[in-house]
Amino acid sequence: MAVFPAFNRSDILADLKAATPHAEVHIDDAVALKFSANGRAQDAIQGRILAYVAVGDVADIQGVLRVARQYHIPVIPQSADTSTVIGADGIDGSIILSTIRMNKIQEISKGDFLAVVQPGVINGDLDKAAREQGMFYAPDPGSKPISSIGGNVATNAGGMSSVKYGVTKDSILGLKVVLADGREIKVGGRTLKQAFGYDLTQLFVGSEGTLGIVTEITVKLYPIPVGNAVTGVAFFPDMAALASTVQDLRLSGIYPVMLEALDGKTVQALDEYEGTHYAKSATASMLIFKLDAGGEASLAIAEQILKDHQAENVSVTADPTEAAQLMKLRQDMLPAVFAHGNHIMEDMAVPLSKLPEMMNYVQEVAQKLDVDVYTAGHAGDGNVHPSLLWPKDQAEPPAKIIEATRLMFHKALALGGTISGEHAVGMSKNQWTNVELGFDVDSIQHQIKNLFDPLGILNPKRKIN
Amino acid sequence: MAVFPAFNRSDILADLKAATPHAEVHIDDAVALKFSANGRAQDAIQGRILAYVAVGDVADIQGVLRVARQYHIPVIPQSADTSTVIGADGIDGSIILSTIRMNKIQEISKGDFLAVVQPGVINGDLDKAAREQGMFYAPDPGSKPISSIGGNVATNAGGMSSVKYGVTKDSILGLKVVLADGREIKVGGRTLKQAFGYDLTQLFVGSEGTLGIVTEITVKLYPIPVGNAVTGVAFFPDMAALASTVQDLRLSGIYPVMLEALDGKTVQALDEYEGTHYAKSATASMLIFKLDAGGEASLAIAEQILKDHQAENVSVTADPTEAAQLMKLRQDMLPAVFAHGNHIMEDMAVPLSKLPEMMNYVQEVAQKLDVDVYTAGHAGDGNVHPSLLWPKDQAEPPAKIIEATRLMFHKALALGGTISGEHAVGMSKNQWTNVELGFDVDSIQHQIKNLFDPLGILNPKRKIN
Repeated sequence: MAVFPAFNRSDILADLKAATPHAEVHIDDAVALKFSANGRAQDAIQGRILAYVAVGDVADIQGVLRVARQYHIPVIPQSADTSTVIGADGIDGSIILSTIRMNKIQEISKGDFLAVVQPGVINGDLDKAAREQGMFYAPDPGSKPISSIGGNVATNAGGMSSVKYGVTKDSILGLKVVLADGREIKVGGRTLKQAFGYDLTQLFVGSEGTLGIVTEITVKLYPIPVGNAVTGVAFFPDMAALASTVQDLRLSGIYPVMLEALDGKTVQALDEYEGTHYAKSATASMLIFKLDAGGEASLAIAEQILKDHQAENVSVTADPTEAAQLMKLRQDMLPAVFAHGNHIMEDMAVPLSKLPEMMNYVQEVAQKLDVDVYTAGHAGDGNVHPSLLWPKDQAEPPAKIIEATRLMFHKALALGGTISGEHAVGMSKNQWTNVELGFDVDSIQHQIKNLFDPLGILNPKRKIN
Repeated sequence: MAVFPAFNRSDILADLKAATPHAEVHIDDAVALKFSANGRAQDAIQGRILAYVAVGDVADIQGVLRVARQYHIPVIPQSADTSTVIGADGIDGSIILSTIRMNKIQEISKGDFLAVVQPGVINGDLDKAAREQGMFYAPDPGSKPISSIGGNVATNAGGMSSVKYGVTKDSILGLKVVLADGREIKVGGRTLKQAFGYDLTQLFVGSEGTLGIVTEITVKLYPIPVGNAVTGVAFFPDMAALASTVQDLRLSGIYPVMLEALDGKTVQALDEYEGTHYAKSATASMLIFKLDAGGEASLAIAEQILKDHQAENVSVTADPTEAAQLMKLRQDMLPAVFAHGNHIMEDMAVPLSKLPEMMNYVQEVAQKLDVDVYTAGHAGDGNVHPSLLWPKDQAEPPAKIIEATRLMFHKALALGGTISGEHAVGMSKNQWTNVELGFDVDSIQHQIKNLFDPLGILNPKRKIN
């Protein structure tokens, strides 16, 4: 039996180059390998890409899609390539369409409280530019210094300040998107209220490049709040005590901008890394919090709540230098943990009241399956990030890590949660669509995918199954 | 030539009654007339409805849809029936499916900072129940005491506090929806972060009952902010001076929860109604503002900004009784204006910096076409509500009113705005879909409509054209 291809590689590549006059087109093996496997062993994808195309403009994007439609080639949208869910790695025979060179901040408007950016702009760069005008860009994923706004939109990225300012979708006012058929459409706009059409903007946000290629993003900017920022850390005997404190801090009406939790093992790893002695017990849990408004009055309320909950080793400061020292504990968390082995960092979100139960279950599974698990979380919005570790001399995670993750996912769902709080689905979790969403919603998702991308060329097998 | 109907009315009604055992089914002329024309002369629809069905539960809704599919009958979802855009009035031969009896607040959760409600719950009732638990429901349309959460979701209703807390869509975490084919699906959920599926929740919000019937709504609740609320009024020589003050109040980082503007004619009408003397000139504009957090420090900043902008007759108070007196000016605005004639109140939103230009254009058109126009607006988010008046002895608006509105709509679009900020589209504005959205997006909207409602039975000719 034989398979008869209709086209040969060199014809396709000649067409691709002709169709993308302002792009950098790479077809050499080194680039192909780099972007096929993304340098991450556990994410390695079989096969190799056809080409890596760093587009220069919208016309290039339309050119890539024209060629992709003609030859039925998968197109993988990518910009800063920081996906943690195999969302933007190359697949065999695909074109990686990178928007990383489309990185202009086109406008910062003090008049309209918004910015207009291209997808390749780095989150931290946008925020910096906004702050120079007395405003800021709220969504702050851990990848803020390295991830792009295009990627943040694709994954509906969250962050630490989501507890106060919401996730990426809450900051997106409008988009321009090139559809699979090549048309560029504009959805949403520059107004703060909008009740006209169906909300296609939010349909594209979080769609992981499966419905279209985002070419321009209009984001809401917030004014920098008045009142000194206050940063603090506090310790609790266990996660339940910490969670109950978080509950009261939220309910008090002081609107913290950060409520981060680190479990006992993470605190122990930090002690080891920093030479500190915070971990009085194996379950000692650490809270890092920040208020970006409200000044003295809000601080007094926070301190009283911490006292009522018998928090230990409380440090609170409005001094920027001291605050930076406390924040260093949060920043050092990942290196402190990852010093212990190779890792997968997971991302589940549960209803806020279920946080202690989820945290406890993670530790139960770790013990039962003998897996090294360190858990941190955006406690203020029920977002849990367990890091599962294994020895550095093994490239691939052992089976028990995969099994532990599977159990945790089922638990998050049983608690009314989601198996993706802020990292999206990619290829890592798309086998779970039917489990999390059920058959009916899963089917509707496929109908929507088919509506926008009938040939199935846009980031196939990501997001949906 | 003859038309041969396949079914007769009495068979259909018998099926309808059998399919909706827990519903109140009205087929008498009085009810039919009431809900066909909705008691509003200018909204009168030709023809009469087949039946008004106040459903008792989800099974009734599924029953109505089963009958509607079988006989191809238009179904008009309705609850509190407060649409201002002919969004929920009966059309000839239709079934009005009212969810007004499904009005249970099923849960207020302090643990998860959310409420779960049925669609018939009145906005103000939900807010009151939340406040009893130290939280509040943020979206506050003018219709707060009379409109339902189901209707607020259908229209993506805004309100005064949108400037700080966003519109309805920003408070919706999850929905249950009965689709046209009868399946009940669940989208979104109880978590504050969610990056799993396509965002179908936001697709249903603002879809005006054209994609499905919402049966359960999970809303975010906010803790009541600390710090005394402060309310104030101030006067400016014209709308440009007011708008520039609003800009600075926003940029200052004190996060006002209300920034309302009333134009010169409205101030004059208020003077007449209240016996006050605020209107020193025909263009004198009035700002009403409120801070719900920040206390003394924020107030001092607000007062300095007002002073810098030479605001006149400034009154500011933290005293609840005095605040209520100032708020009375805002509440009396509509009766003061509507005393002058029959009216249409329009609803456009423009980018914030375009507010003065839009306000000026409204007055230009009023003068040019000799139309009596009073304009108020949610100035903090660029949302403009001109009320166009005509003599009370004429039921229908004169042609020049329709023409004035048409000109204003085109202007709002030319300024990068929308012709529906927070009241939705209904049948009033669906001729504008192609104008506001363009052919490509308009087509996608129809594809989405067809995906969810292939028979076109759900609120036909509303929202889209």
